[in-house]
Formats: sequence, structure tokens, C-alpha cells
Amino acid sequence: MNEKKITLSEDEIPENWYNIVADMPNKPLPPLHPGTKEPIGPEALAPLFPMELIKQEVSQDKWIAIPDEVREVYKMWRPTPLFRASNLEKLLDTPAKIYYKYEGVSPAGSHKPNTAVPQAYYNKMEGVKKITTETGAGQWGSALSFACQHFGIDLEVYMVKISYEQKPYRKLLMNTWGADVYASPTDKTDSGRKILAGDPNSPGSLGIAISEAVERAAKDEGINYALGSVLNHVLLHQTVIGLESLKQMEKAGDYPDVVIAPFGGGSNFAGIAFPFLQHKLTENRNVRCIAVEPASCPKLTQGEFRYDFGDTVGLTPLLPMYTLGHNFVPAAIHAGGLRYHGAGVIVSQLLKDKLIEAVAVQQLECFAAGVKFANAEGILPAPEATHGIAQVIREAEEAKKEGKERTILFNLCGHGYFDMSAYQDYFEGKLQDHHLTYDELHSGLKDLDTPTI
Amino acid sequence: MNEKKITLSEDEIPENWYNIVADMPNKPLPPLHPGTKEPIGPEALAPLFPMELIKQEVSQDKWIAIPDEVREVYKMWRPTPLFRASNLEKLLDTPAKIYYKYEGVSPAGSHKPNTAVPQAYYNKMEGVKKITTETGAGQWGSALSFACQHFGIDLEVYMVKISYEQKPYRKLLMNTWGADVYASPTDKTDSGRKILAGDPNSPGSLGIAISEAVERAAKDEGINYALGSVLNHVLLHQTVIGLESLKQMEKAGDYPDVVIAPFGGGSNFAGIAFPFLQHKLTENRNVRCIAVEPASCPKLTQGEFRYDFGDTVGLTPLLPMYTLGHNFVPAAIHAGGLRYHGAGVIVSQLLKDKLIEAVAVQQLECFAAGVKFANAEGILPAPEATHGIAQVIREAEEAKKEGKERTILFNLCGHGYFDMSAYQDYFEGKLQDHHLTYDELHSGLKDLDTPTI
Repeated sequence: MNEKKITLSEDEIPENWYNIVADMPNKPLPPLHPGTKEPIGPEALAPLFPMELIKQEVSQDKWIAIPDEVREVYKMWRPTPLFRASNLEKLLDTPAKIYYKYEGVSPAGSHKPNTAVPQAYYNKMEGVKKITTETGAGQWGSALSFACQHFGIDLEVYMVKISYEQKPYRKLLMNTWGADVYASPTDKTDSGRKILAGDPNSPGSLGIAISEAVERAAKDEGINYALGSVLNHVLLHQTVIGLESLKQMEKAGDYPDVVIAPFGGGSNFAGIAFPFLQHKLTENRNVRCIAVEPASCPKLTQGEFRYDFGDTVGLTPLLPMYTLGHNFVPAAIHAGGLRYHGAGVIVSQLLKDKLIEAVAVQQLECFAAGVKFANAEGILPAPEATHGIAQVIREAEEAKKEGKERTILFNLCGHGYFDMSAYQDYFEGKLQDHHLTYDELHSGLKDLDTPTI
Repeated sequence: MNEKKITLSEDEIPENWYNIVADMPNKPLPPLHPGTKEPIGPEALAPLFPMELIKQEVSQDKWIAIPDEVREVYKMWRPTPLFRASNLEKLLDTPAKIYYKYEGVSPAGSHKPNTAVPQAYYNKMEGVKKITTETGAGQWGSALSFACQHFGIDLEVYMVKISYEQKPYRKLLMNTWGADVYASPTDKTDSGRKILAGDPNSPGSLGIAISEAVERAAKDEGINYALGSVLNHVLLHQTVIGLESLKQMEKAGDYPDVVIAPFGGGSNFAGIAFPFLQHKLTENRNVRCIAVEPASCPKLTQGEFRYDFGDTVGLTPLLPMYTLGHNFVPAAIHAGGLRYHGAGVIVSQLLKDKLIEAVAVQQLECFAAGVKFANAEGILPAPEATHGIAQVIREAEEAKKEGKERTILFNLCGHGYFDMSAYQDYFEGKLQDHHLTYDELHSGLKDLDTPTI
């Protein structure tokens, strides 16, 4: 009998995170002050983040030690299994070998706790009693709720109002882990009130929720802020995924030709891809890393590489990124975690330097891929994860056409048990693809006055 | 660093199931024909089950080989992890050592696929194209949907109407895996029509749904029936849980003083307890095995040991069991999987012979235990599973009072991600305990005319 899954023991949980900045040929450009538009140093981030995370944010060290206390919590679900998708291979009748790393075994059901835990830990170490954050579909909010609960920190979550209403169970999961959850925009912040004044029925957006959470933390010395993607330290923490996968692929006696992951802000993609990309950067090894974004929010494939804000109101530093403009409003697709106007700084630079690839996929193809996967492999993927699977199937079919083997690895970043309403809509034929018009695509870019690069 | 979880490799998946009948001092009494009330032989089951399962149902062999094809599918989630509940121990400040086997990592999120897979497999081997079954909360229905999908068998699920309406996502999961799901009672069967004639708004019950599924299979030669608990072969298949746990406890250098599991029909309890109970039966080893039932459906602690039907209408053979009477209607508690009037034959005999223990717990204590567990260990347990946890906490507190170590093992049979509405009701204070009146308790027994023992 062949091995279906390759597992690791707890002492094989990585001891260091991998910081790809050390190996990048072109380092990321510095962030700029939102007002003066001058480069800022790490100290500008101090009102929001604990010093250890700020150091990681600007570090150029290749390896950063994972604290024992964090590895201890990782053990609750790590190392995660790497599966051979043998049933999917059969179903597709492809010569491709398909592997997937499954992050859905974590308490919150996705890869997000990988960074939520160290973020809560470093805040705890520096005496922080309360954190604010935003969440879209709720994956990040529930991961941070779990982590804050573990370390005894209070958490305030600004949840995009439309998700708050559509996903009461995600909210309830956060409550179970002790977090306070508010439907954003709220009347608790200037940012929220400003949006509500313009549109009392605003359904909210990730950008607005970030503005609210950042404002709250910036105005109160005792409160810090935490972000679930985009930033360098977040991507760093997620590299445990790829580092474990490296060992597991080695155990399987294999190495991927292609590494695939869905793309929202970059942490999911970075998590699995960077440890492999390392070999491309340092040994010129031929490995393709593909970020898959929704066609309705195509910052990587159709955005502009320039400075932009991370939030809607313009409170965050300006970051050099692929962006559709911080005022871009993505269509209400079910992959809430991918509805973000920008991309992380590191991933943006790598794409600019053509070291990684990006593709955009429509949601009907994604859901069809998700159902195919559930039938073959038994796991119902989160809507975000189906984007990766859609591209995996494209690659597997291409391999079939060519009649050549191809080894594919992808990150199954989470299960879809809290997203059943999305599948219901899909089965009932209520979903459609969203083809952006020229005007829609440029809605956020045309009046953008942030610095170009 | 201590190990948080003890894992096994795929080649440590058991090669045999353990059949406790071989070691029982008093073998179970024979089933009786529902009409003649005479003992029946295995051939009477042939219209419903494939011959291999019937052989297992009556086997006295101690070990029954697990087919390679079944072990191959088990690898999709087995071996499951055994966790040390170190955070819960800290929270309870107890000298007890607490371990839990986590079955929620299966595709359907519970222990049910352990038997769904071999049942579908044996049907497939004997050329069966279609199976019927019933489901309450939906754990069993979704497990069998997954298994039938894997082996290419059509599945018709009779889902208790009130659950069908309250748990649309469980239904959707079954649909995703290709099953047809009907709200029972239906007008597709005589049994269903009979119930609807008496009460057009009947919310249904597990007993009624079994009647419908059995009738459908009995009347059509091409269709077989499958049951998710109670029967000997179902309990047999679940022993993979305990057999793996044995190896894992050995790796941890420990052995349980107490083994605990929730009790519906018996498969969950049997699964984890029988391989340990084996040592009590054959080596006189001192291990307490405790079945935990809901106080609102207390067949083990307050039922009668006598012959009774497995279904409401009276189509199944009469089985010697602890029962509240096949007409007993349990209160609408959220642990749908435990709302069954009877207990499996083997477990009933073991309880009669005082080889196992049983306790009944009210639901508020269970949900409080579930939330405590989620906060400590990160996993939100299914309402069924919280019954086990409530008893674990009682044992741990007793150990604390005595100031003595005690090693506790329990079966965390599934996660609660499809049961969030139950937690919502709990948090909103909508749930209450249900203290059965004398009349309620005897409602199903007082006019029962099945043979006594």
C-alpha cells in the first residue's frame, strides 16, 4: 500500500521561520509616512505593534527563531499532514502527481493560527492587554480569537458587516473564544462614522474594517493592532507551512515543479511557496510558484505597482504594492478572504521581478473545482482554497495534454464547513462569474494620488 | 518539550477489527423474528445486508481482518491523533492525566466513516447499486454519503424532518457527496404515510426514519440498507479507534484507569472502550469503561433490559437491549445522535453483567463542558461529544478532591462546526435541562408487549 499522507513528528515542527527578504535580489522599497510621504523607520509602527514583530517586519536575517512557547501551541495541530491527492489524480486521469498540504486541521480551520499565535504571544510578552483587528469572512478573526484566548488577551474584532450578517456562526466561534465582535462600519470610530455618514447602509469592506481597527489601536496606548496578512512578519510566520512541506516532499522522494496557492494579501501563498522559492533564488532551481487570485479582484494580474494605503480611509503607511487602489470595491464573491485591493510588499516585489507567476480565475470554475475535490479527496475546501484547486486542475490537464509527468504541490489552506451557504448558492445556480468592465477595473486607480514608483 | 499529541504512521492502522463477543462471559441472546417472536438466523438479514456484514454480525471470532481496500480509504484520515489535554488539566487544576482520541479529522467530521467505509465496500463487492439509510443530526448520513460516493453506490437518506429543517448544511454536505436526502416522514413509504396520516406535521424521529429506510430496502431486491450504530458489525468496525488508542497510550507510557465516551446506540463507546475492556475480560485488568447518555434519553440508567424493536413501526428484528420502548419520544436536545430509545445488544449485555458503567448527564452541564474544552484545547466539540467531556470533568474533579492521580481517556468523536446553532441557543440562554417525569419516562414502556427477558 502507498502512503496517502506524509506526516511528521512534533519535533519536526520547524525551529525557525524563513525570511525570504534575505535572499531577494531586489529588496522591498521602504514604507512611506501617510502624511509626509517620506520613508519611515520601524519606530513609526510602535503605536500598533510590539517591538519583536516590528523587528521581524524589517529584518533581513534569513532565519528567525520560533519561540518555544509558540512551538508548544503549534503542537495543538502541527505538523499538518501532506496528502497525495491520488483520488483526484485518478479522477482527472492525469500523469501529474498532485500533493496538498492541509492546513484545515487547525482549531480555527485554516492556516491563520500560524501567525495569530506568535502575534498574540509577542503582544503578551510585552504586556499588551488588548488587541484590535478586522476580519472579512472570519477566518482571521477566529484564528486570533483562539490565540488571544490562549494567552489571556482581550480582543476586539471589526467584522465586515455583510459577513457579520451572512456568517453568524463564524462570529459565534469568535465569541466562544472570548472575543467581542462588531459589525463594521461601526459608530465606535471616526473612520466608521465617516463611512456611515456617506452611506448609512454601507455593507462594509476589509479596507474600512482595517481603518476602524487601526484607529482604535492608534488612539489608545494600551491597545495594539494585529493584521492577518500582507505584512512581512505575517508572511514570515506562515513559512512553517512550506518548511514542513519541504521535509514531507523529501520523505515522499519528490520535489514540486509547480507550487500553487490562493492569493488574498499574500500570507497563504508565501507560507507554502517561499521555502521552495528559496531554492530558485539561491540555487537557481526550476520551480514555478503560482499565486491564484479571483478574477473579480485581480490586483496581481491587472493592478498597478505603486505606493498605496493598506486601508480605505488612509491611516496606514503607504506600501509599495500591486494594487487596484484602496477605494476599489470588490464584488461580493464568497471567497471573502481574497477580497482585498492590494498585495503584500514582498510578494509584489517578487512578481515585479518575474520570480513568481500570477493567474486570475472566475468563481464558477473555482466552485466546480471545489466540488470535484470534495468528491475525490473527501475534504470540502473553503471558497478561498478552491482558487488554488482550479489552477491545480488546469496544470494537471495541461500535463495530460502533453503526456508528461508534472509534480504539483498546493496549499489547501482551510475547510469550507463555515462556508456552506456559498456552496448552497453554487448548487442552486445563484452564483455567476464577474467580468470587470474597464470602468470597474479602473474605479480605484483613476483618481489615485499616492506616489507612483 | 512534552508531546502534545501521539501520532501513528499509516502502517500502524490496525489490520484487524476486535470482536468482543469472543471474550464475553455471557454471549448476547439471539434476535427474534418481529412477527413469530422465534429466534432468527443470519439468513433473515439477507434482504437488508450483504453476506459479509451478516457474517460479522454473528461472528464469534476474536479478530476480523480489515480489507486492504478499506484500510486504503482509512488512510484519508487515519490513524487519528491522540492528544494529551494538557491545557484542560491546567484549567481544572487536577492531578488527573487526561487524553483524548480525536475522530473529528475524518472527512465527515466524526467517527462514523469508520463503519460507513467498510459497509459501502462490502455492498460494492456484492454488486449492490443502491443503499438506503436514516440520519438524525446528519453525522451518519454524511459519513455514508462520503463512503458511497467513494465506491460509486447510490444513496437515499431519510433525514429526521426537524433536523432536515434545522441543519440545512448537513443536508447540503450529503448532496455534495451525491446522496439524495428526504425529510422523514415522507410519503414515499407505507411507514411514512402511516405516521403522516396520524400527524401530518410530525417532526419525525430516528425510529421513524429507520422504519422508512428499512421498508424501502426490504421491498426492493436491488436495494440494501445500512445502519450507523447499534448492530454488532457497526460496533466491530469502530474498534479501530480503541485499537489505535491502545498503541498510542503505550507510546505515551500510560494506561487509562477510566475510558469514557458518549452513548447513543453504542458504536462510539464500543469503538474506544472494547479494546481496553478486552483486558478486563481476559486479564482481569482494572479499567472502568463509562458510557455517558443524555438525562433526557436514559435507556442505560433507567431503561428496561428486554426485547424491543430497533425502529418505531416494528419492522426490524426484536433485539435484547436496554430500552425506553420503541415508542419513546426523546426531547429535542441538540445532541441528535444520542436521541435513540435503545442500546446495542452487546453493550446492553455488558452493562447487565456489570462489566461497564453508565451515567446520564443534563445538557447544560454538557454545553458548559464543551465551551470549557474549546477554550482550553481549541477544538469545538459536537454536542454529542460534550457528554463525554462532562463526565471527564467530573472524574478529574473527583481526582482533585482525592488528591490522587487518575488517567482518563475519552473519545472526542466529532467537531461541532455543523452544530453552531446549538451553541448559539446555549449562549443565548435558550436551552434548559430536561427532567423526565415518571409518566414521560414510562411512556414507551407501559404498554410495550415485546418479549421480556
